Amino acid sequence: MAKSLMEVVGEDHVVIDPDVAASYGIDWSRRYTGTPSAVIRPADTAQVAGVLAVCRDFSLAVVPQGGNTGLVGGGVPVDGELILSLRRLSSITDVDQAGGQLTAGAGSTIADVCSAAAAVGWSYGIDLASRDSATAGGTIATNAGGLRVLRYGPTRSQVMGVEAVLGTGVTVSHLAGLTKDNTGYDLAGLLCGSEGTLGVVTAARLRLVPESPERVVALLAFSSVTAAVSASLEFRRTVPDLRSLELFFDDGLALVCDVFGLPRPFPKAYPLYLLVEMASQIDRLPELSEIIESTGAVDDVAVATDTARCDGLWQYRERHTEAINTVGTPHKLDVTLPWSHLVEFIETVPNVVRTANPHATTWLFGHTGDGNVHVNVTGVEPDDLNVDEHVMTLVAQLGGSISAEHGIGRAKRPWLHFNRSKEEIATFRAIKNALDPLGILNPNVLLPVH
Amino acid sequence: MAKSLMEVVGEDHVVIDPDVAASYGIDWSRRYTGTPSAVIRPADTAQVAGVLAVCRDFSLAVVPQGGNTGLVGGGVPVDGELILSLRRLSSITDVDQAGGQLTAGAGSTIADVCSAAAAVGWSYGIDLASRDSATAGGTIATNAGGLRVLRYGPTRSQVMGVEAVLGTGVTVSHLAGLTKDNTGYDLAGLLCGSEGTLGVVTAARLRLVPESPERVVALLAFSSVTAAVSASLEFRRTVPDLRSLELFFDDGLALVCDVFGLPRPFPKAYPLYLLVEMASQIDRLPELSEIIESTGAVDDVAVATDTARCDGLWQYRERHTEAINTVGTPHKLDVTLPWSHLVEFIETVPNVVRTANPHATTWLFGHTGDGNVHVNVTGVEPDDLNVDEHVMTLVAQLGGSISAEHGIGRAKRPWLHFNRSKEEIATFRAIKNALDPLGILNPNVLLPVH
Repeated sequence: MAKSLMEVVGEDHVVIDPDVAASYGIDWSRRYTGTPSAVIRPADTAQVAGVLAVCRDFSLAVVPQGGNTGLVGGGVPVDGELILSLRRLSSITDVDQAGGQLTAGAGSTIADVCSAAAAVGWSYGIDLASRDSATAGGTIATNAGGLRVLRYGPTRSQVMGVEAVLGTGVTVSHLAGLTKDNTGYDLAGLLCGSEGTLGVVTAARLRLVPESPERVVALLAFSSVTAAVSASLEFRRTVPDLRSLELFFDDGLALVCDVFGLPRPFPKAYPLYLLVEMASQIDRLPELSEIIESTGAVDDVAVATDTARCDGLWQYRERHTEAINTVGTPHKLDVTLPWSHLVEFIETVPNVVRTANPHATTWLFGHTGDGNVHVNVTGVEPDDLNVDEHVMTLVAQLGGSISAEHGIGRAKRPWLHFNRSKEEIATFRAIKNALDPLGILNPNVLLPVH
Repeated sequence: MAKSLMEVVGEDHVVIDPDVAASYGIDWSRRYTGTPSAVIRPADTAQVAGVLAVCRDFSLAVVPQGGNTGLVGGGVPVDGELILSLRRLSSITDVDQAGGQLTAGAGSTIADVCSAAAAVGWSYGIDLASRDSATAGGTIATNAGGLRVLRYGPTRSQVMGVEAVLGTGVTVSHLAGLTKDNTGYDLAGLLCGSEGTLGVVTAARLRLVPESPERVVALLAFSSVTAAVSASLEFRRTVPDLRSLELFFDDGLALVCDVFGLPRPFPKAYPLYLLVEMASQIDRLPELSEIIESTGAVDDVAVATDTARCDGLWQYRERHTEAINTVGTPHKLDVTLPWSHLVEFIETVPNVVRTANPHATTWLFGHTGDGNVHVNVTGVEPDDLNVDEHVMTLVAQLGGSISAEHGIGRAKRPWLHFNRSKEEIATFRAIKNALDPLGILNPNVLLPVH
């Protein structure tokens, strides 16, 4: 078997040395670990197809892997699966300066995509804190969201087409990047968010978006969750070029300032904050003030229009993940709530967590513009699922989604039925059987154990 | 069989009177006609499921139908299929004013959706000339595009979730409308553009977009296709809030002015025109002028900022379809070209058509911002496929899509392989078999005859 794989990718790219393989056995959550039976590093789509052919012949379970920034164990070989690392497929080609598109290899990082876009006067619609490691392929497999979903949609909205090797062994390639192209079923969209269970994306044609050199970032302080959520809704309804709308609390801000030695943004502390970014002209500042005033509930405000100050304000939000990691390995519960229950959820969840585990600390932040809250819980053992179960139950009771943008992976597999009916899950299985009839692709994530 | 259907929907809603049924046997293209064996008009999702159960029991081919504004025969019972009309499912419910969403029954028209959105201070991202008849369900089945794809994406980008009865008989319902919801495969996206071959969408949760009460519409005159396409690319790259970018030629403009008695927009005629709409502040007019000047190729320009004048400029573009219909029944060939070949296509296609049929007249207009050209050909018999074949061949040679936004339907079924490989078509069939194993749903469209 190893010999067959070596024939496909070359001896050097079948890694079985446990020391080298170890780094492929853990994701950014640090909650899931495993030892791959081997790490296979193909160089191109043909080699990916060759590797999958061997997997089919030997009935080997294989976990496709990108930059390992996942947070739900979706790319970790917990059961000793083979790792198919896509990182060598990192080229960015066919950059279309006039039309604003490029083709990214599955292993190219989001930072690489952003740089290639900027080099020709465009921008990429997806941005996230893990940009230096997260890959195009990984963000497609998880339909990653991030900081600008409000304006440009999730990864699925950026993908004009993909090249992929399906579980059937078939290679499909549709990389012409035509904006409108209604010629059959949306395979690219189906692969987006499928967590490597249907096929292995090897390249994607990505749309770029116009650069907005001018931007306005405002940090708003609030006394109550109700006021902050109301203001979020008002911004969403009235600002056509709103790009980000992010929430965090004073405990998170204090931790960020403490860990990274940043100055506090306001002379005094407030219970919670909204960070707002508009892709806009500076001359729209009066309008922004008007909206802020009309919400009638902003206690203090800091506004930035130059890059340095904009980036400075963003630090308070963006460094939450790193700061919380210094406290412990968090349970990362990434959820969406309907607007009508967002306030209730935010106000209730810390108590629910504390009831489930009195030693737990809850950190809340997230993309309020999408109704998306990142519930981070520290002080809990990695394999203690009691807190997760309680939070998921609350989310489901309030009509929310147990996975906003991180995916189901291994972490939330036991609770998929909270959001999806038996009929929907049966339909997922029918699709899985159609595209991966032998069940070799990432068999231990997403779909519940039978 | 008729009795079983009557038991599901009631006697009055199984239409077999040929005079009444006739109106269900033709679409807006007027090129495809058929006589349905019966027209079934269910009132709700449960009745749709009941009708499909009967179809499964009796192995009856069924064509789901909305407002009949299709242009590729995708909803026409050419082979005497049963028509499943969704028009009675026309309610709009659960309007979320704060969050900007609503649930549209499959039979509600786009105009109804727009009105319901406007009533609560929002707008709908899709707008098209057929808005008064086209339905939510029909636009989902075809992944309709229209006039604002550039800014808000196609229908697929508006759909947060659907309720549908699949060919397997299963009803799936996912209407919570959560912006981020990565919990399994994207069934809603898969049904978008599937042309009624996988399931019957009965309702959809639609996202709304912020209203832009202020807008700028400009009509620009050009001397050459190259200049107009270059300007289009420049607008796409530099205007972040660009909403529409539409192209038409002087023959079309002259026809529109003639048929509808409109004044010509400029003192003299130019070869071609671009209509540009920005969802923008009036105070950005100087910026618009700058961009226009920088293109260095605009021969004349008319700008409007008030609703009446904006709508007036839009008439020149939007009434093309009606105007051309007065000349004859056109072959409507809706295609996308890559930017690099758009000029070549536009300049070449009239000659290609003339070579294929010396009696043919070519009318070109479309959504240049998406690389999408509507090739309308009059003076050709409806069943003469020679012109179609020649245009499709040219499109394929230039790397374009034979269906931009109208879909494959019956019209382009013979040429799907121009755009899709054997492997892709085999994958489509695997998905079709998974969701409609008996093959009862719209069996004569989209996928080629075996």
